[in-house]
Amino acid sequence: MKVGFMQFSPLFGRKEENVERVINSLRGAKADLLVLPELFSTGYLFLNEEELRRSAEPISDGLTVSKFLELAKKENTNLVFGIAERADNKLFNSSVLVTAKGECFVYRKLHLFDREKRLFSPGDKELEVFDIGEAKVGMMICFDWIFPEVARSLALKGADIICHPSNLILPHCQDAMVTRCLENRVFAITSNRTGTEKRRKEEFTFTGRSQIVDPKGRVLAQANAEEEKLCIIEIDPLLAKDKKVTPNNHIFEDRRTDFYLW
Amino acid sequence: MKVGFMQFSPLFGRKEENVERVINSLRGAKADLLVLPELFSTGYLFLNEEELRRSAEPISDGLTVSKFLELAKKENTNLVFGIAERADNKLFNSSVLVTAKGECFVYRKLHLFDREKRLFSPGDKELEVFDIGEAKVGMMICFDWIFPEVARSLALKGADIICHPSNLILPHCQDAMVTRCLENRVFAITSNRTGTEKRRKEEFTFTGRSQIVDPKGRVLAQANAEEEKLCIIEIDPLLAKDKKVTPNNHIFEDRRTDFYLW
Repeated sequence: MKVGFMQFSPLFGRKEENVERVINSLRGAKADLLVLPELFSTGYLFLNEEELRRSAEPISDGLTVSKFLELAKKENTNLVFGIAERADNKLFNSSVLVTAKGECFVYRKLHLFDREKRLFSPGDKELEVFDIGEAKVGMMICFDWIFPEVARSLALKGADIICHPSNLILPHCQDAMVTRCLENRVFAITSNRTGTEKRRKEEFTFTGRSQIVDPKGRVLAQANAEEEKLCIIEIDPLLAKDKKVTPNNHIFEDRRTDFYLW
Repeated sequence: MKVGFMQFSPLFGRKEENVERVINSLRGAKADLLVLPELFSTGYLFLNEEELRRSAEPISDGLTVSKFLELAKKENTNLVFGIAERADNKLFNSSVLVTAKGECFVYRKLHLFDREKRLFSPGDKELEVFDIGEAKVGMMICFDWIFPEVARSLALKGADIICHPSNLILPHCQDAMVTRCLENRVFAITSNRTGTEKRRKEEFTFTGRSQIVDPKGRVLAQANAEEEKLCIIEIDPLLAKDKKVTPNNHIFEDRRTDFYLW
């Protein structure tokens, strides 16, 4: 199975350009699953809810989702990408999975980071796992990484691969995702953005280092902090079915849930 | 507050020698909290339950616990150390906290690693947190690290410092403990052993690299893979009371427990 990420620096507020740029890069990529960054089509640093609302799109007929549904079918691939979602009157920081079959699934970020709380509503949907044929896929977004319950919930629900669109600015996530993979024996694809956004007095530099980690905690591929990179590698998703750390230790069956406080 | 670990290579089955050696090293150390490795007084590689039973000791009047209770009072310190515990007919891989006030608390390893399942009973006591004045202390042992629920439970119960006696042979724990500290905003003291034990056909080499990590994921001190080392540093345990990752993100209050499968 061929999986990958695309790391790049979206241009703030220029949705059509960002979407076209990615589509041009992904055409002919021949991957089974590709992950894009969080909010990849809009950029990150919205000044206020009004501005966000103008950029946000509904799942049903938004520009990004429509174009990517078309791309997924044409390229016979599955795509995961972060968008600003408008649903009724609410705005969500969402990750969308569009499949080669034309399906479309959404995850809404459960744990909003810092200033996102002023802009978005917190996620209101279950953590779900989706079968794309070769593997079962779960989604989480950026800051969700710091809550071990997210990856754990996805893994317990059967995820083989966690797709993790990100706009990271803190330095710890990439290493922590190795822990997430080890403790759940899953793959994780963190697709982070690069570049700097400056708006009024705020300036954010995103840390790149997108990566693919396997269930034994091996970093199979990693971009550097600044490059634009489409990275596709071959993995064996069946590795994520083997939950045994040793012949006597099954990472789920060994859990002592009676003793856990949560 | 002065906290530390002692990393060394216990001699298999020579309890009195191991205990005396540690006592001689700790005398005059002037620490508030010191952590020793897992099974530090007996060694690790028991051939069978019979052999383990002969080395194991009851909490009430065992040699290791008695000597360390005395030491803790005399040195006005708090000590955490791993022993083979005999309780009624059962054998546990336990961690003991003896305090300067003469108290004695026990944690029994919840997650037994590999061959330990042939020797020990799994832990049957709650994860607890103990107030030693300067800080609240929780205990976990070695392989417990791979289950995020353990450190999470201790942190939710108020632990400022997680004491982590270990006999590590896998390479990932030290990095993963950085994640445990970050995700719970606590200190962790991993006291690992060094050296090789060979008994019949089995040979284990322990990986050292004992360490102290702070709530921001900074490795404040780390031994190398082989040295014998008593390491004591000054920390501010109040740092563990600050659960804010950003002004808008409280690591516990932000949890979306309704959405977790755990």
